Amino acid sequence: MTTAAQRLTELGITLATPPKPVANYVPWVKSGNLVFVSGQLPLADGKVTVTGHLGAGVSVDQGAAAARQAAINIITQVNDACGGDLERVVRVIRLGGFVAATGDFTQHPQVVNGASDLMVAVFGERGRHARAAVGVPSLPLGACVEVDAVVEVR
Amino acid sequence: MTTAAQRLTELGITLATPPKPVANYVPWVKSGNLVFVSGQLPLADGKVTVTGHLGAGVSVDQGAAAARQAAINIITQVNDACGGDLERVVRVIRLGGFVAATGDFTQHPQVVNGASDLMVAVFGERGRHARAAVGVPSLPLGACVEVDAVVEVR
Amino acid sequence: MTTAAQRLTELGITLATPPKPVANYVPWVKSGNLVFVSGQLPLADGKVTVTGHLGAGVSVDQGAAAARQAAINIITQVNDACGGDLERVVRVIRLGGFVAATGDFTQHPQVVNGASDLMVAVFGERGRHARAAVGVPSLPLGACVEVDAVVEVR
Repeated sequence: MTTAAQRLTELGITLATPPKPVANYVPWVKSGNLVFVSGQLPLADGKVTVTGHLGAGVSVDQGAAAARQAAINIITQVNDACGGDLERVVRVIRLGGFVAATGDFTQHPQVVNGASDLMVAVFGERGRHARAAVGVPSLPLGACVEVDAVVEVR
Repeated sequence: MTTAAQRLTELGITLATPPKPVANYVPWVKSGNLVFVSGQLPLADGKVTVTGHLGAGVSVDQGAAAARQAAINIITQVNDACGGDLERVVRVIRLGGFVAATGDFTQHPQVVNGASDLMVAVFGERGRHARAAVGVPSLPLGACVEVDAVVEVR
Repeated sequence: MTTAAQRLTELGITLATPPKPVANYVPWVKSGNLVFVSGQLPLADGKVTVTGHLGAGVSVDQGAAAARQAAINIITQVNDACGGDLERVVRVIRLGGFVAATGDFTQHPQVVNGASDLMVAVFGERGRHARAAVGVPSLPLGACVEVDAVVEVR
């Protein structure tokens, strides 16, 4: 059976140092078997990969790529919460997807799929989660998407 | 004592086949005693019942009716998670209400009451929940409201 | 060791009667060891302290002060959930910060810090939490910020 770490390698994804929050809080908190992960931006090498709004210059493909990057950062935090052993992940419970979007944008699900698809690619059935995807007028650092998560671990 | 199923019948509400998510995720995930339900749109017969924005053409009554429809879909998913026995619902813990709204709209609570009132009508005291109600610029499929939920079951 | 109640006194904060929700739901629900607190507005003496939008007239300092007031109301509800003994708080698990903001606003974290900083000031290490901070076009009663919470108690 392929582990989550092996799938990350196959996907060419290297987990960097967990991105630090941009404010006075912590990246994740564990309560019982649940890890609550702070909202993650599409940060790579300390920079937001895609800024702007869906429906006004940012394409669905660009948004989905940004959501995938936010999901990589979620996995990075979960890996930290699991002491480096992603096999301790029992189930990705829920993702919250916030998409910077105009008033007439309707394809929020397609954008947040960038995050959802990665979870299933990395964790298989354990990666299938509940989800909410909504629009927002703006996000920290001008990011086009933010994703938070609740993950069950052992 | 009246069961939740009996109250649904009294209210003339028939639970249809659980609406499928419009993207790559699942409608609910159970972790311990908690069921996390994905954001539900006001879908009926596969169509969004009310599109548009509160404060720009959609009335509070229309919005509340849409929130009630989203809540019917939440109950449908919870029913599925409970194997068809809504008496396994211990408590509706939390609803998240996202209302597509203009910048000067202020009656989000009255809109989300459409969902909250139904929960209490169906589950009685078990239906009384914590809640957040906020505006959003846009939602999937142009819906005027989206509601997600956390429900404790046995 | 200083208790949370002592820190509140040192900060000159008096917990008033818990603000009632402005609609048909309850201020908090406890499930297992988790208390889910409803979205709190920056209400003081029954009035919203700061209305309007960040990026359009409301300054970051004003927004942070409003977030702090919302956090006082969260602590008031948690105190109620703990039967008046804040030492039963094991950990503030998560805050959700919704900031009424324009499309080009980017300093949501600095606004929500008003809530995060208070949690750490009152609860110390127990107050360090996961968090999501996002923009919204509008909030109930025209408030500039709304904050909800998940808190672990014993």
